[in-house]
Amino acid sequence: MKRIYLDYASITPLDDRVLKSMRPYLQEEFANPSSIYTEGVKTKKAIESARQKIASSLAAHSDEIIFTSGGTEANNLALLGIFEAAKRNSKFKNGKPHVVTTNIEHPSILEVCAEIEKRGGEVTYVKVEQSGIVDPKEIQKSLKKNTVLVSVMYANNEIGTIAPIREIAKTIRHFKKTNNSSTKIRKNDTYPYFHTDASQVAAYLDLNVERLGVDFMTIDGSKIYGPRAAGFLFSRRHKLLEPIIFGGGHESGRRSGTENPAAIVGLATALELTEKEKTAENKRLLKLREYFIDKVLKNFPQSTLNGDRQNRLPNNINICFPNLDAELAVLRFDAKGVAISSVTSCRNIAEDSSSYVIEAIGKEDCAKSSLRISLGRLSTKAEIDKCLAVLYNVVNGGTD
Amino acid sequence: MKRIYLDYASITPLDDRVLKSMRPYLQEEFANPSSIYTEGVKTKKAIESARQKIASSLAAHSDEIIFTSGGTEANNLALLGIFEAAKRNSKFKNGKPHVVTTNIEHPSILEVCAEIEKRGGEVTYVKVEQSGIVDPKEIQKSLKKNTVLVSVMYANNEIGTIAPIREIAKTIRHFKKTNNSSTKIRKNDTYPYFHTDASQVAAYLDLNVERLGVDFMTIDGSKIYGPRAAGFLFSRRHKLLEPIIFGGGHESGRRSGTENPAAIVGLATALELTEKEKTAENKRLLKLREYFIDKVLKNFPQSTLNGDRQNRLPNNINICFPNLDAELAVLRFDAKGVAISSVTSCRNIAEDSSSYVIEAIGKEDCAKSSLRISLGRLSTKAEIDKCLAVLYNVVNGGTD
Repeated sequence: MKRIYLDYASITPLDDRVLKSMRPYLQEEFANPSSIYTEGVKTKKAIESARQKIASSLAAHSDEIIFTSGGTEANNLALLGIFEAAKRNSKFKNGKPHVVTTNIEHPSILEVCAEIEKRGGEVTYVKVEQSGIVDPKEIQKSLKKNTVLVSVMYANNEIGTIAPIREIAKTIRHFKKTNNSSTKIRKNDTYPYFHTDASQVAAYLDLNVERLGVDFMTIDGSKIYGPRAAGFLFSRRHKLLEPIIFGGGHESGRRSGTENPAAIVGLATALELTEKEKTAENKRLLKLREYFIDKVLKNFPQSTLNGDRQNRLPNNINICFPNLDAELAVLRFDAKGVAISSVTSCRNIAEDSSSYVIEAIGKEDCAKSSLRISLGRLSTKAEIDKCLAVLYNVVNGGTD
Repeated sequence: MKRIYLDYASITPLDDRVLKSMRPYLQEEFANPSSIYTEGVKTKKAIESARQKIASSLAAHSDEIIFTSGGTEANNLALLGIFEAAKRNSKFKNGKPHVVTTNIEHPSILEVCAEIEKRGGEVTYVKVEQSGIVDPKEIQKSLKKNTVLVSVMYANNEIGTIAPIREIAKTIRHFKKTNNSSTKIRKNDTYPYFHTDASQVAAYLDLNVERLGVDFMTIDGSKIYGPRAAGFLFSRRHKLLEPIIFGGGHESGRRSGTENPAAIVGLATALELTEKEKTAENKRLLKLREYFIDKVLKNFPQSTLNGDRQNRLPNNINICFPNLDAELAVLRFDAKGVAISSVTSCRNIAEDSSSYVIEAIGKEDCAKSSLRISLGRLSTKAEIDKCLAVLYNVVNGGTD
């Protein structure tokens, strides 16, 4: 029996076309890109061409792309890099550097914020609304003289709700312009910077950094049918950023370590493909998503959708079934050949299995009773129907 | 005309057998290892089995292996992780945490040391002898009440000279036992710790951490015919280490970011193969190396070998040709189909092209006039002869 994979929010399979583009660099073209002989120059060119391609799809410059070992590292680089740069800047005289974020960010933001606090920084965790969406006014209220960074995830990995990134960017711009209490560091460079973790949305939403108005943006290869342990940080020109990994001065001194040409070329292909297929794929997935949600809400009268239904990624379904043991349900789905998830897999295993995101939207009772079904490129109506059938079998209280 | 690659010290090609072991995880087995369904459990098992294999060949425990994005990150984790842990430890009351290293370390050590100084630490750079080898007595002299770490590279990446790791370990043990001024942090845990960057030696020398007496050891996949942007840090149990990348708590909380099963499985295979083939391969390479060095020293009376001839990696040849423009020579070798290097590729491109390692052994005049020819698994006598022929052509003053 063919297994059904419905956990694309956790990780996406590597696309054939991406793997094909990576192949020459897996083995044959192996030279160190820093070498000055023919083979090295060739891999260097492949990297720079990939960087250029990626920059173009973001409306960015190629020197604004910093390749990393994935989304987690890119988030760490953005937050710690901006924090350390501010801390060390003699012109920053406003006390502790202050970071604003939300209470539903990915652990690779929240745990970095905890580290920033340990290093003498200050962090404000803005609460999202019951919809799972942060109110830009709440961000605005949290901005202070010593705020160096606002980091808000583009869409949440568990409940798929989309943040109003452009409105937040506008709020920050307004704060910088009208409020003399923001910190001007250099000519044309004023805090706070704006970072968004776009890992979860890269296959679906607009990534044009000019339209979005972001200064930093994280992208992860394994969420866009691309290479694993590969990603990048968009880092706007002339912004102050310290590295977090030091060494040979790769990536213009912002991220050391010999580059991985296969992964970098793969990232460019993966992004090119998602950009091209986004519109049609979103439409297709949205239809499947709505079909699934309608069926469930109709047939399980007690069930509720977690997070806003409209401002939501087209592939994300996250539903609370009161009193369900979600972790056990995932195992029962597994036994019936369907891979879904309860809480995000990116958490400390030692921690308990309840969702802090679902708690944060005021649904404490749902934190251990919700299932996340996330669709993707290979999902079909037939798979969705099979998943629904398993759902009726696993979860009590259905009427179908 | 088939190109000849003689820059194995910079990067090694991926072995066919390693790639074969990675294949299932490149695409088919793609699930997130933190997922609890069948596919996730399977990739998790593959990772843990690889970890166990690697630990065994080091005589370590599997919970002592922390996978990273390569040697550079592993070096960063060791140095910054130990430094930050000491800095934050309330029982460490001896002032600034102090790190001892040498003046010929890889940039991924030296630049981290510079960062440690910026973060309020103290660093002693012990000078190596003219042989390129550090005297354990000089390490001993540098140990202080506030020394938390000694980091000495196992063998140098440019000149291949091998450090007396066991003797240094003994020196440190002796310091801990007899000197009340070393810092006891907890039961059975006393500073200074001992780290070695074994990236350059992993295919050639003993990696048994018990025999070596090291507490931390860096291994890089791309130097052992393994995966790129993959490596690990051996981190002895019960030693204090802070993470440098924060997030989902992967690698037992010591390195966050979704694991890369293909790379991890590949690392285990690569290490298994080098361990198995080490003895025979060392013998073969040593013969080629000695043949090459003999020829050159005989035929270029002005030339000198950089670094000790005996305590030297079997694959490393680094020779000074007075007044040679080494960078130009590398390009001329390239034009004739041979890839070799002048200085290490792992340096900031903005910097000049002279070797700080060769300067450190007192041969300032050779810093821009030395060629590194590094042999490897695919090197043959015929290739060496071809390289020698090119050398006679490129470098003036030969008598052949």
